[in-house]
Formats: sequence, structure tokens, C-alpha cells
Amino acid sequence: MAPHGAAEEECVSGAQLVAEALKTQNIEYMFGIVGIPVTEIAIAAQAIGIKYIGMRNEQAVEACRLYSKLSVRPSSLEAIPAVIEKAVRCSTYGRPGACYVDMPGDFVNLQVNKSSVKYVKCCLPPPVCTAEHSAVSVAASILAHSRQPLLIIGKGAAYSRAENSIRKLVDQCGLPFLPTPMGKGVVPDNHPNCVAAARSRALQHADVIILFGARLNWILHFGLPPRFRPDVKIIQVDICAEELGNNVRPAANLLGDINAVTEQLLEQLVLMEWKYPSYSEWWKGLREKMKSNEETSKALALQKSLPMNYYTVFHHVRELLPRDCILVSEGANTMDIGRTMLPNYHPRHRLDAGTFGAMGVGLGFAIAAAMVAKDQTPERRVICVEGDSAFGFSGMEVETICRYNLSVVIIVVNNNGIYRGLDADTWKEMLKSGEPTVCAPPVCLLPNSHYEQIMSAFGGKGYFVKTPEELQNALKASLAEKQVPSLINVMINPQSDRKQQDFHWLTRSNM
Amino acid sequence: MAPHGAAEEECVSGAQLVAEALKTQNIEYMFGIVGIPVTEIAIAAQAIGIKYIGMRNEQAVEACRLYSKLSVRPSSLEAIPAVIEKAVRCSTYGRPGACYVDMPGDFVNLQVNKSSVKYVKCCLPPPVCTAEHSAVSVAASILAHSRQPLLIIGKGAAYSRAENSIRKLVDQCGLPFLPTPMGKGVVPDNHPNCVAAARSRALQHADVIILFGARLNWILHFGLPPRFRPDVKIIQVDICAEELGNNVRPAANLLGDINAVTEQLLEQLVLMEWKYPSYSEWWKGLREKMKSNEETSKALALQKSLPMNYYTVFHHVRELLPRDCILVSEGANTMDIGRTMLPNYHPRHRLDAGTFGAMGVGLGFAIAAAMVAKDQTPERRVICVEGDSAFGFSGMEVETICRYNLSVVIIVVNNNGIYRGLDADTWKEMLKSGEPTVCAPPVCLLPNSHYEQIMSAFGGKGYFVKTPEELQNALKASLAEKQVPSLINVMINPQSDRKQQDFHWLTRSNM
Amino acid sequence: MAPHGAAEEECVSGAQLVAEALKTQNIEYMFGIVGIPVTEIAIAAQAIGIKYIGMRNEQAVEACRLYSKLSVRPSSLEAIPAVIEKAVRCSTYGRPGACYVDMPGDFVNLQVNKSSVKYVKCCLPPPVCTAEHSAVSVAASILAHSRQPLLIIGKGAAYSRAENSIRKLVDQCGLPFLPTPMGKGVVPDNHPNCVAAARSRALQHADVIILFGARLNWILHFGLPPRFRPDVKIIQVDICAEELGNNVRPAANLLGDINAVTEQLLEQLVLMEWKYPSYSEWWKGLREKMKSNEETSKALALQKSLPMNYYTVFHHVRELLPRDCILVSEGANTMDIGRTMLPNYHPRHRLDAGTFGAMGVGLGFAIAAAMVAKDQTPERRVICVEGDSAFGFSGMEVETICRYNLSVVIIVVNNNGIYRGLDADTWKEMLKSGEPTVCAPPVCLLPNSHYEQIMSAFGGKGYFVKTPEELQNALKASLAEKQVPSLINVMINPQSDRKQQDFHWLTRSNM
Amino acid sequence: MAPHGAAEEECVSGAQLVAEALKTQNIEYMFGIVGIPVTEIAIAAQAIGIKYIGMRNEQAVEACRLYSKLSVRPSSLEAIPAVIEKAVRCSTYGRPGACYVDMPGDFVNLQVNKSSVKYVKCCLPPPVCTAEHSAVSVAASILAHSRQPLLIIGKGAAYSRAENSIRKLVDQCGLPFLPTPMGKGVVPDNHPNCVAAARSRALQHADVIILFGARLNWILHFGLPPRFRPDVKIIQVDICAEELGNNVRPAANLLGDINAVTEQLLEQLVLMEWKYPSYSEWWKGLREKMKSNEETSKALALQKSLPMNYYTVFHHVRELLPRDCILVSEGANTMDIGRTMLPNYHPRHRLDAGTFGAMGVGLGFAIAAAMVAKDQTPERRVICVEGDSAFGFSGMEVETICRYNLSVVIIVVNNNGIYRGLDADTWKEMLKSGEPTVCAPPVCLLPNSHYEQIMSAFGGKGYFVKTPEELQNALKASLAEKQVPSLINVMINPQSDRKQQDFHWLTRSNM
Repeated sequence: MAPHGAAEEECVSGAQLVAEALKTQNIEYMFGIVGIPVTEIAIAAQAIGIKYIGMRNEQAVEACRLYSKLSVRPSSLEAIPAVIEKAVRCSTYGRPGACYVDMPGDFVNLQVNKSSVKYVKCCLPPPVCTAEHSAVSVAASILAHSRQPLLIIGKGAAYSRAENSIRKLVDQCGLPFLPTPMGKGVVPDNHPNCVAAARSRALQHADVIILFGARLNWILHFGLPPRFRPDVKIIQVDICAEELGNNVRPAANLLGDINAVTEQLLEQLVLMEWKYPSYSEWWKGLREKMKSNEETSKALALQKSLPMNYYTVFHHVRELLPRDCILVSEGANTMDIGRTMLPNYHPRHRLDAGTFGAMGVGLGFAIAAAMVAKDQTPERRVICVEGDSAFGFSGMEVETICRYNLSVVIIVVNNNGIYRGLDADTWKEMLKSGEPTVCAPPVCLLPNSHYEQIMSAFGGKGYFVKTPEELQNALKASLAEKQVPSLINVMINPQSDRKQQDFHWLTRSNM
Repeated sequence: MAPHGAAEEECVSGAQLVAEALKTQNIEYMFGIVGIPVTEIAIAAQAIGIKYIGMRNEQAVEACRLYSKLSVRPSSLEAIPAVIEKAVRCSTYGRPGACYVDMPGDFVNLQVNKSSVKYVKCCLPPPVCTAEHSAVSVAASILAHSRQPLLIIGKGAAYSRAENSIRKLVDQCGLPFLPTPMGKGVVPDNHPNCVAAARSRALQHADVIILFGARLNWILHFGLPPRFRPDVKIIQVDICAEELGNNVRPAANLLGDINAVTEQLLEQLVLMEWKYPSYSEWWKGLREKMKSNEETSKALALQKSLPMNYYTVFHHVRELLPRDCILVSEGANTMDIGRTMLPNYHPRHRLDAGTFGAMGVGLGFAIAAAMVAKDQTPERRVICVEGDSAFGFSGMEVETICRYNLSVVIIVVNNNGIYRGLDADTWKEMLKSGEPTVCAPPVCLLPNSHYEQIMSAFGGKGYFVKTPEELQNALKASLAEKQVPSLINVMINPQSDRKQQDFHWLTRSNM
Repeated sequence: MAPHGAAEEECVSGAQLVAEALKTQNIEYMFGIVGIPVTEIAIAAQAIGIKYIGMRNEQAVEACRLYSKLSVRPSSLEAIPAVIEKAVRCSTYGRPGACYVDMPGDFVNLQVNKSSVKYVKCCLPPPVCTAEHSAVSVAASILAHSRQPLLIIGKGAAYSRAENSIRKLVDQCGLPFLPTPMGKGVVPDNHPNCVAAARSRALQHADVIILFGARLNWILHFGLPPRFRPDVKIIQVDICAEELGNNVRPAANLLGDINAVTEQLLEQLVLMEWKYPSYSEWWKGLREKMKSNEETSKALALQKSLPMNYYTVFHHVRELLPRDCILVSEGANTMDIGRTMLPNYHPRHRLDAGTFGAMGVGLGFAIAAAMVAKDQTPERRVICVEGDSAFGFSGMEVETICRYNLSVVIIVVNNNGIYRGLDADTWKEMLKSGEPTVCAPPVCLLPNSHYEQIMSAFGGKGYFVKTPEELQNALKASLAEKQVPSLINVMINPQSDRKQQDFHWLTRSNM
Repeated sequence: MAPHGAAEEECVSGAQLVAEALKTQNIEYMFGIVGIPVTEIAIAAQAIGIKYIGMRNEQAVEACRLYSKLSVRPSSLEAIPAVIEKAVRCSTYGRPGACYVDMPGDFVNLQVNKSSVKYVKCCLPPPVCTAEHSAVSVAASILAHSRQPLLIIGKGAAYSRAENSIRKLVDQCGLPFLPTPMGKGVVPDNHPNCVAAARSRALQHADVIILFGARLNWILHFGLPPRFRPDVKIIQVDICAEELGNNVRPAANLLGDINAVTEQLLEQLVLMEWKYPSYSEWWKGLREKMKSNEETSKALALQKSLPMNYYTVFHHVRELLPRDCILVSEGANTMDIGRTMLPNYHPRHRLDAGTFGAMGVGLGFAIAAAMVAKDQTPERRVICVEGDSAFGFSGMEVETICRYNLSVVIIVVNNNGIYRGLDADTWKEMLKSGEPTVCAPPVCLLPNSHYEQIMSAFGGKGYFVKTPEELQNALKASLAEKQVPSLINVMINPQSDRKQQDFHWLTRSNM
């Protein structure tokens, strides 16, 4: 592997090969934590115009491998470009996912003759496939015979950029739809056909459901009774064959790119001149339920008592958020209630902890989103809504945000605990009876933690707010300030919870 | 998990649940080796009409998991039907592959109330997807502008049952084609457009190649010069997105079911009224090369000297094989030369050791094929062509063949070694100089081993043949005998080899 | 890694480095299956005097890694000697076990300058450790206060070459002992203190048990009631700290090399002048039980009815076996009953399928043992006692035995099945009612299989025996023949079984 | 597994079983992050007197399994006590290490009859083994013939509580010694025979080295020239057989508990009446080197220029630290220089990032140490010396420290970066030329970050110090305050580095 004697041959190091290969594959950003031997790769990347963002924490590398779509290790320096092309290609073809390239540490500083390297070009854009025509016909016919249809718009619809086609389907056929957390914004949440405010009702009574890139996992109660009709007909649209039929046997499977398949379906429905009547009993029932639910939420949101509850906080946040902001969220109640209370108007403008509820991803998402926004749409803001426990998993990344001067607004919804905590007085009372290791409920965190000071420690703006007015003022100031990041630490009632759920006992049973 | 007290509730054991779940998913055959606790599952399977075939050897179970598309373990007896449905579904959806269900040993005899089991239906047939229209147009245009086109028909084409569509494409457009080992028979090997006899020439000069479900792996020399033109345009058709672009960057990617995509392509070419001229220089050159290569093979095949060479053996086998037989093959030279010398006339009638050259799979394949043939097409014969070393990996399965009375004909092409061996005289001479552990080349096996006696040990017919006449007689007798399996041990020149290859140094370099 | 320009520097290939490193670590034998790229390593090994034995089958390599004590992969050619030293050292230090070296395929033919290789010496012999003095005193005191003591001699005692010290302990203190399968022969089975013939009684009533390198696993019923007294005091002697206390909490733990610890214990007991009285009730009861059990076995062994039962077969084998032969065994009943019926007189002269009951290891063990015997004690015979099913897992290795001319005697105890089978008449009757896939019990193999012909197929001697006389004659002839291997296929009653066990329901429950 | 009908039987949940089993094994503390279903286990643990400490971050669970000595999963609720006993036992027997118990999520709330649970007692204390007598004699003889002997005292010596025996060996034989980072304090760092201040010299010229539970890894330069004599004789003392001989072939191996083996060695040396002369050339050379090195360090430490360098900071910290404090440390330069500058006077009073240099462990170590100190030696302080980058990995655990009111003092040695950073002016200058993603060296963090505010955010005391006087005052105040934790953010010269090393190029080459 070492260079041959001839002095005139041009050499290249492993670090340079990695950097050049990433550049060839149009990678623009690199995130990492330097240390021997990563530093050299970061420097080589910067040298050819890849932006390097240094983070403050990372998870175990071995674990990455387990959750990756592909794990590869170049056997020689010469193979680095091909291995990186393969990893990038694999991460974007089919169902997207992370890929792991395991670079032997001593490769970084080894040298090799350029002439012996197998250079490769950038991979082609991801291929698109469509559903077979007959399956589309079957699906259209099932839909056309439904009495209580429902569309569920998932993350996959957002990934495949299906917003125009699905919007057309909703509008043209007059169908009610429900977004999943990461599917929010594919059709705007304020679209009149969005029945999110009657979610349980819609799921429970629909007789035909089209799943656009959504999984029937615990978030959708596995598609099972009593949350769904036992005879519900599922039309599943997905890019991944192996995902079709998981948990519930579909009435029809449409395998293909979600945008392309939606267009196929739309074409078929147009041919059939089918439209779902807006005056149906189904629509009537859904609209009534939505109205009553929204009134309940509104009542909660307008409660004047202090400390505030979740609904009051989100109500005020919603009033002030720019329509085109990117919303990042993680936490338990904070993420769950925030999903219903904070609307999205654009696709791919919401990032949350997702299917596995992994904590600690929020600030990383916010940094990545803000970095891209800074380059492409400088006026777009990133708003990161965090539970106090969730914030703790990666709170030190606030320094990263400040270091790169990213105008992120972090809102910590602080209930002094995980799920729920204690107020300061109760905490003190509890301490009289013994050590917190013995007496404090395991879900409790320190009351009244001043998370906003973590922002000010690094030169950002911090706000500690207890009332709706303070919240409004802090958020207005944060949004007005376009150069400096902010953190608003919103104290809420530590015993605040979600409003009564119809199926509380089922909601999180399989987390 | 244990049954409740109530005596009237009906219980079911883990073994029964497994058997019933497999039956529900239309599984007809179970292969295994009994032992505690597998026996109970085999008995339960037989009890409800699944056929159980007891084998003589198995590979480590843990290893299966590593090479499986999916590895699942039911967390409770109640979950068994859903887990088995998922495994069966996953093995047939998308790119097919084995799935591994890891059943805790104590589940087999545990009992559970039937009412608590989550029963599921049989999964739907695999979904079909097609390529996007614009990609099909691009591909058709590339093909229409080619001067030296070539189709490569891979295993994926056979899996997707694309024989009619690809045959139509070949016939209608007048295109030369080349099958991969497991793609043989999708279009019959004796079709006039099959250019297998000019394989190297065809690969080396083609300017446009359509890959139908074939990988550019070591068997296809990774698609690289000097075996391919540096500027060759590859049109890759595959069901698996992540497979597209491996090793060579395609000129066009067609993602979808191979049969469906071929029909799309055909429709487009029909619209374009395009046909490749049969009087082209390309065709002329290919036909000349085929003729000269066939003459070389024929000369080798007709050599009268003894011991026979590979070509002579395969020539005589070819003359006698029924057209509709199922050919199984494994070995090094035996499999390689057999691929070129033994034609296939039907799709999915050839099973060989495949991409990874795994030895020991031949008799298992033969047993499975014969079992299905026995039930569905009783007159169809299974012919298993084995190298002597390859036969050693699972030779004891001959007992299984005899036990189930499967009319398999095994031909062991015996060169006393791996790649090559020594004749008996040279072996004896060698022994004079020392122990075989020290003196024998590591590739040598015992000369003149009577593998046919392994067949006669279990009641089958064994033949030890040294001349073309003996071979013909033995094979005729074996084929005439429809009730009893046979093994023909064909002694060849231990130094016999493939004929001169144009690119010998590359052929197996990456095995 | 490639050699520098200077032509005068001496190079060495990866294959040579592997061979030399093994030689340096005093490795004398290499077992394998050649194929690219293993052939080169085998040739390089032979070239420097390592003996290479080519086998016929192998298990998946990936699986080896999972069961290895250590899995290492050299990162460069230069590191090969150190990696191989580490693997050899790790396999012999502490509790012995296999180690796995994963050699990148392209290393074999790469060249490197000798001067850059880090050569290492042979590792030191395994270090020995002893138990702490106070623990030895405690153990000696517990033993001295016992009323019904028992020694259990395990595989670990054989590995640590503790035969002299344990023999002295047995003799000097007059203690009853019981060997585990692989511990047989550490003290000869015909020693008057061996209570194997009263095994259940001894285990069930002992109040103090010293475990010498044996595990309380399923073979020893996990040390639990009703097979053991609930208040039994276990003194556990083991080289592996983590093994101490598994399944049962010991009364004393003696961590150290078993031979060294036994000497410590003996020294202490000598100081205490302690001896267990031979006229005790415990000894009286054990001797009575032994006598009655031996009479039962003898009665079974002398049954004149045909087909023979297991006891008759083993009785006649026992009469003829040379005292110093190496016994290899695998199978279910064959191995279980053989353990009790075939005595060992020397340590490390029995190899069986062991703790995990892995099938297919027998012939490999026999080949390895015969290879060593051939070089060191040419008159010593290897006798391999196999069940018919077990033989099927690796029966083709008979060719290896013949190729290397190893004077192994294989005895296949053939009951036409796994656990039990059908006789030929019943089998034929069964076939009338349908296919064997449907009708045959899954444990059945083909009746009257002529396994001896597998031996004669490769030039060895085969015997098919049905009566005690035929068995005696065949075995005498086999033992008399010192140049050629033999296989004696002994037909027994397919419904033969073990004699009545006191605790049948527990015996194999956790296999 | 479900409870039988009978109402009178007492049931227990999985969570309770886990808690009770841990209690039985004398586990006093549980660390975790609650969430479904961990909360129930934490509550059950508190209910029976185990202290629960809720943390703020955790690493991926799957990864734990990979680095664990044992990974087990109970197959049923009944098996939980035995599985936990095994995990606790395995973690403390032999070489200690973490064990991983993988509890199926649904076990936590399942119920089982108490009568069916297999309860087990607490495992015995870890067994002790000693080296064989002859090996001890050999080692003593090698030592007695040495001219330039050296003891290296590793982490293993601390684990085995060998402080008295090793101290006696050092004193009685007059031997120079060197502690590894975690071996510091086994013999106090201020012992006159400690040659840490002449570390390189001592390693480079010693002719006989006794390694007490230390590895010849990168921290000890793999025991190789030029850092060691090529002919150095290593006497390796270790509890783990497989560790003996790693990287260097020892002259003698002493396998056993380090304390017990040291006593054996001492006994032998006493018998031999051997003592190393204090007036030797070796001692003279070492003392001269120590003196000159200490003067260099002192000169650096007393530099008046600002910002401070590492040596100045550690000099002042050393002056004020209580002798019996527990020192925790992580970082690159901070940990490396701190090791040499901050003395330990007691064994097991230093915790650092250790062999693998894992970042993020510091605050967790500090919390655990403070928790134990609080219960056992309330006056003992925990001092945590962190690099600024290292602090970022788990800085949010400061909330945990405040929540449990642990009187930890954290000293962040802040150089604005990893290895080195930029001062505020240079950083501003750099920003003029472009984005920090492009222009900032990847090692840089935000200059002048106010890490102390993270402490004050949660009610602790924070200090931002730039001069020796500020540092002294802050540290005095922190130590005086016994109820409240503190964080002292010490700004140093961002370009400060270690003093010149003799072998700089080797020092960290294999990290």
C-alpha cells in the first residue's frame, strides 16, 4: 500500500481520499467530534469546501453499525471512493437510511499513489418505481366503494416529496386526512380536510384507509381494534415491499414511490370521475367531533391559572410562530401535545424523535436544519420545542449552536420531571423526610432548573418565563433577534398532563 | 402464559402453533433434522398434512441468522402465527431471501389457550412494482442507439417469471443474449440468439448491455475492462433499489419487477418500431466466434484418449439428458464447464452453487427439486452433476434420497481432487517419498474413490465408469429406471482442465 | 504494505507468514479444506514441516467466530506473527478454548519486506495458579466432617493432567468417585472406588461433593433435588473464576489449576491424617447398589435374542478393546450407554460430543487422535463408536481416514433411526399407507443401511454384523489389521433403549 | 407464567423480583433514567431500600452488550433471581467487569406466584488464587539479579487491595516504583521511591520490571523500544491468564490475585534476605532526573504570564486539595498533565477515563463516588478535573449533582478547544474571513464559554477564574462550602501544551 519508489508519482492520503469521495458524492456538511484520527479528515474536508460542524457528544460507534442500513469497511485505501459511493447510494436508494463506513484508524494518514486509486463518479439520483396498474385499479375501486374513507399521510410521503399529488387527491376527491407526526405539513394542517382534531374518531370509524408511507406501529395502535374497525380495509402505499402487510393484512398493496403511486391513483380516480360527497354523515360526524375537541383544547389553552398547563403554552407559541419555520421536537408529553397543538404548513418542516422515541436527537436536528436554512433560506427560523428531561440528553449542544451563530429558538417546556415532577415547595417538604435517592419519585428532576442560563453561558439569550405574557414577550424578542440564538425556559404546572384521552390505557402501552 | 384453570378452554402447544401457522401460509414441505425439541414440531406438521423430510446434516444455526433477510423470535406463544406470517411474507416480498425464526426451545411443549392466540391469515401474494415511465423511455432510446447491444439474463429474471416477456424482447428486436448460470433457460440455451458460445467476445465488445436481474460480480468480472468496454452503457433492471449501480454506474436504472419492466420496455420499443438488424457486423462477428468456439469444444469432446476429459463427459451427458430435466450442479471445474456444456430449455430448471460458490448445497437442492417434481410432474427427472470434492460435503444425503425413493440421478465427475488431483500410480509413487500429510498436494483426494458404492450402500444403483460407452450405458440405464436413484461415478483425467480462456488470469481472481 | 523499490530486500508472502508463525508456536498439524485462497497457506505450511490434513466438510466460518474464546484479524501483514501468537496463547492459557483468526483473503498472496515484519517468539507455557491457603483449609475441613463424601472428576481434571494427584487423593483417603464423560480415565474406570455403576445413588445421597473441573449442567442435573440432596455441600475446584457458583452455591470455592489445587488439598489432608473409613454405611450401600446394577446390565448384555440390544453390543466390544485405545463417541443412546459400558483406563483417552451434544464431531476427533497416535504411539488404536444418525453428519470423512491410511476402527451402532427407528418389515408395511414424508415417524432413517460400504468404497474394510459372533469376529479382524481402517455396521433392535432409569423424566429435560 | 386461579397464592411482579434479587446480592445503588418500563423497577428498588439515582443521559443499550463481560436474558420471571445472581457474581469474580442483563420489557409488570420463583442466596465473595510456588521462585531470582529494577503498579493492584503488600515490598526491598493512572495511590505518590517524575528515564533503562496488574498498552508504549530496553525482563503479575504475555513475552508469569501473589513474592524475598541497594547508580540517576524534571515543572508552574498554563493551574490546585479527596479526571491534556501534577495518597481515590480514553464518564464517576462518600465518609470530597471538551459530553449531569446535593467540586480547565483552541480575539479575527464551518480549525470550541453558569443554573456555585489568585480563592471557597456543589471554570492559554516530551512522536500514536 505504501508508495513505490518513484518520486514523481502523486500521492494522496486516506483522509484526503475520504474528503474527496464525499465531495464527489455532493456531500456538503460533515458533523463530528474531532479527536485522533478524525481531525485530519475534518481538515481535509474543509480544505475542499465541505463544511465541518464540530459537535459536543456522540453515541457509541459500535451501536451505529447495528442500526445502519449498510455497514462497510474499505479493505484498502484504493477502495475508499467506491466504498463511500456505495454508502451514499445505499442511504438514498429505496427506503432511505443511515449507512456506516468503518474506516480503519491507520488509513487516515497512510499515503497511496493517485494512479492506483479506483475513482468513481457521483451515483445517479435514486430510481423511482411505480405500482402495477392492476393493483392501482383495485385500490381505486375499494376507495370508490368506501363509505367512510380516510387518508393517513406518513413520513414516507414527505420523503418522496408527494405533497402536490396528495394535495390534489385530497382536494379533488374531497377526502379527510390525518398526518402522522413526521407527515405533518405534506398537506397543511389548516387544510379544511385535516381531521387531526378528531383523530380517534376518524381512526375508529373509517372503513377504508389509505396509508401513504406510514407504519401501523404503536403510534397508530397497530391498526387493531378497538382503535380501528375490525373490518377496516387498508390500502397500503409504500416504497419498501417488506413493510407491506406489517401488523395488518391490507386489502390492497401498492408498492412504489409514494408520489408516483399517488399520481397513478389520482389518474385512475379522475378517469372514474369519483369524488367523496362533502355532505356525507361521515364528514358531518367528523366536523362535529373536531369542533367539540377544538373547544376543549381552547378552554384548556385559555385557562388563566398559574403555573400554566401544556395547552396554554402551545396556544401562545402557535400564535407567534412564523408559518414557514422548521419545528423540531422531543420529549414525552411535550412532543405528544405539541404535535396536536403546533401546526405545520409545509412538508418536511417538522423533525421529531420519531418512531422509537429516541431522546437526545432534538438539538442535533435543530443544528442540521439551521445549518441548511442558513445557506439556502436565511430568513427561515428553526424552533426547537423540548421537554426538560429530553433537553438534558444533549443540552451541551447549545454551545455548538452559539459557536456557529445559528438563530435557533429553543423552548424548554419545564415540568420539573419526566412525565411529571414536583413543584419547589413539595420538593423541599419531601427532603425533610429523607434523601431524594430514597424519597423522590424516580421521575422527578430538580425544580425550577434555570435551563435558560445554559444558553446565556455561551452568549445566547435566555428567558425564564412563568406567565403567558412573559412567554409572549420572550418569544417575540427571540424571533425578532435574527443573529443570536435564544432559549425560553417555560415553567408549567409539574402535574400538568394531556387532556382526557378516549383510549388512555392503550396509548403508550407498547412503547 | 400457562393456561388458566378453566378446564373447558381449548389449549394448543407451541409445536402445534408453529405447524398450523406454516400451513396457513401455504407451506407444503418442511426439511430438518429431528432431535429434542424439533421432533414435536415435525410430528405436529405431519399431523396437519405438511410433508416432513428428515435430512442428515445441517449447518450451524447461529450462522443462518447472519445470512438471513430477517431474524425474528416470538416473545410469547400467542405471537407465533404473526411471527411466522412475517417471516414467510418477508422471504417472498421484494428480493426473495431466507428468513430465520428463532424458537425458544421451551416453547415447543408449552400450552396456551387457543382464545388468547393472535391468529392471522395467509399473507397476500408479493406486490409488483414497475419502473417509472420516463426511465423506460431513456432506456429504450439508449438501446435503440446502440450498435452492439447485448442482453444479460440473470437469476432475477427467472425469479420474476419473466420468460415470456424476455423471449418476446429477444425475438421481436433480434437481440443477442447471454444467460448467467441461474438465468439459463429463461430463454432456451438453444435459441439462435443465445451467444453463450461467444461469451467473452460478447461481453468485451458490447456497447449497450441490459442487465435483467444479474449482478456485476466476479462471475461477470465486475463489469470492468478489459473484459468490458470502458464506455459500455449498462441499463440495469432490478427489483432491489440498493443493487442498482453496484460496481458500475449505469446509463439507466429501471427499478421494478423484472417481468413487468421488460413488458414496459417492450411496449416502448414496439411503439418505436425498433429492431436490431440481423445482418449487422456485430451479429456476424458473434456468429463466427460461436462457430469457432463450438468447434474447439467439439474437438475436445470427441477426443478418444482415456481417461476422459470434462468436455467428453459433458458431451455424452448432454446427448442423453431429457430436455425438461432439472439440473443441479456444484463443484469448481465441474460446475464451470458444465454451465457451458449442458443446455437448459426451461426457466428455473437449473440450481447451482451460485454467487458465493457454497459447496455442499447440491444434494439438498436435488432432494427439494425431486420432492416437488414427484408431487407435481412425476415424470420429470432431477440430474445432479457434482465434482468429487463437492459431493463430499453432503454425500450422506444419498441415504435421504434413497429413504424417500427419489429418482435422482447423481453424476460425480471424479478427478481425484479439488481443481485437480493425482492418478493412482502417481499417488502410490508419491507415498514412497513420505506421508501424504507432508507430500501430497493439498488439493488431492484419494484416487479412484468408489463414490457409487455410497449409493448402493442404501439400495440405489451405482456405476463406476471410465469410458464414453460405459458412461452412455450407465446414464441410459439410470434414466430408464424410474423407481430407484442412481449414482454414476465418472473417472476423468485428474489433470483435465478447462480449455484455454482468453482471460484466465481474471476469471476467478475474486472468488 | 507493498515492498519498497530496493530489489535486494527479502520479501515474504502472507501465506508464508502464517505458516512460519504457526511453526514458531509449535503447531504441528493443520486441518482444512483447500480452495482459493487456503491452498497457498496449506502449501506454505507443508513446505516448513507442518502436516496438512485435508478434510471433506466444514461448518460456516462466521459461526466459529461466535463460539471462539477470541476472534482477531490482523490489520496488516506485518502483524500476522503477533496475532497468531496471541491466538495460540489465548487458546491454551486459563480455560482452554478455540480461537479464531480472520485472515483477509487478499493477504495470502501479498508480499512484504521481511525487515518490516514484527516477529515474535513462541509464547510461554500456560501459567499455573493455586488456591489460597485458607480456602484449602476450609475445604479440607468440610470434607473431613462429611459422612457421605463423593468426588466428581470432570474434563477439567483431565485437561490439567491431574491424574496422579487425584489418584493419590482417592487412594489415600479412600474416597468414592464418579467421572463425567470426558473425565473418564483420570482414575481408571476399573478402580474399586469408582462408583459409576451406582451413579444415581451416589449423587442422590452424597452430603459433600468435590467437583474437580466439572460443571453442574444438565449432565449432572444442575446439582438440584431430587437428584441431589438439598443440603449437599459442594466444594468446587475450577481454573475459571466465573464458573464457580454456577447453578449451585458452593460451600467452598477453590480457584486454581486443578492438579495444583488437588495437591494442596492432599497436603492438607495428609497433615490432618484424615481417611474415610471403608467400612462405612455409605460405602456398604454404594457397593450393594453397584453390584445389583452390574447384574442388571450383565443380564441385558447376555440376552440371546436377536436383533441385539445396546448392552449386548457394548459388552462384546468391551471384551475386545485394547486397554490403551482412544475411544471416540457420539450419538444419543449410543453415546449415553457407551459411556457406562465402555471403560477408560487412561486419562484423555475418551473424546465425545460433550456438553452441547454437537453431532458430526466424531470422525474429526478420530482423525486428529489417529494422526497424533501415528506419530507418537503407533501401536495405539482409535475406536470410534457412532450412532447411525451421528455418523451421517460427517460420514464422508471416511475418505479422509482412508486417504491418510489411519488405522481407525469405526463401530456404527445402527438402530435405523434417531433415538429409535423401524425394522425393515415395519418400514415396508408403513410405505403401503403412504409416502414416508407423511407416514414415517420423523426419527426414522432407512432400515438396514449398509454404512460399512462407505468404508469399502474407499478401500477400507467393511463389516455388516447382526449377531454377537459376527461382531466379535469383525472386531477381532479389525483390530488385527493394523494398516487399513475398518467400519463395523452393527444392526441392533431398532426399538432398543436404555435400561430403566430412576429419574428418566429428568435425565434429558434440558438438552 | 400467569398466576393460577387460586386467589390465596402470593404474587410478585417482574419489577419486584429484579429489585429483590439486587437487594439479595447486596446492591445498594441503582443508576438509571426512568421511562416506560424502567420507572416501575426504580420504584420497586426504592421500596426495599435500594437508593435510586436518576441520571440525565445514557449511551445506547445495545452497545453495552458488546462491551460486557456477560450478557444474559432471563427466559422467564421465575429465572430472574438466578440471572441477577449470575450477573453480579460474574462482574466480581476473576477480572472484574460490567455485566448486562437484558430484561424483556413486558416482564416488568407481569405477575408470577412467589412459590414458583427460584430464589437464590447472595453469591460468595470472589475466590482468591495464588501463583504456583516455582514461578514465584523464578521471579524472585530474576529480581534479585537485576541491576536496574522497577515496579509498575497498575489498576489491578488497586482492585485487589494490594496496597499493604506492595508498600511492604517497596519499603523492604528499596525498589523504585511507577504507578499507572488508576494505580496511583496504591503506594502514595509522595513516597520517596516513587519515580513518576523520572518516568521516561525509568521505563527506558530498567532491566527488570514487575508489572502489578498493568497492561503494556499504548499508555506504556506497548513495552517496546525505544521506550523500553530491548532486553528488559518483564515479570507479569495478573489475575487474568489471557492477559499474560500481551505485547511482550515475559521472563516470568505470575498468575493470581495480585495481593496474594505480592505476599508470596515478599515471603520469598525475605527468605532470600534480598534488598536493592539505595546507593546504586540506578537510584542516583533516577534521583537526578527527578530533581531536574521537578524543577522544570516548577518553573512552568510558577510562570506569572497570563493566561495561565496547565502547570500553573495544577500547581495551585495541588496546594489546596485535601489529601484524602477522590480525584476524577477526563480530557486530553487535562488528564495527561493532571496525572503527573496531582498526587494521590490513597488507593482507589482516582478515577479517570482509563485505557480507552472514553469521554463523558467523568461526571458519572463523580456522582457515584460522591454518593458512596456521602454515606460512608461524609467529610471526604470529590474533585472532578475536566477538560472543557470532555465536560461537554455529560455536562448536564450537573443537574443531577445539584438535585442530590452532592458536594462535588468540578474544575474545568478551559482552553477553548480540543487539544487546543483559539483566544477570543483570534476567533473574532477568523470570523471575518468566513463561516466557522469553513474557517475554524476543527479542534476549536467557542472561546470564553461560561461553563460555571451551568452550575449556577441549578443552584450550585460557579466561578470564572483567570488568575492564580482567583483560582485559589475559588477553590478555597468551594472546599469550605460543604453543602453545595461548585464549578470553577479556569481559563488557560488556549495554546498551552505539555512540556517537551522526550518521545513526543510515540506518546499517543496508538490512541
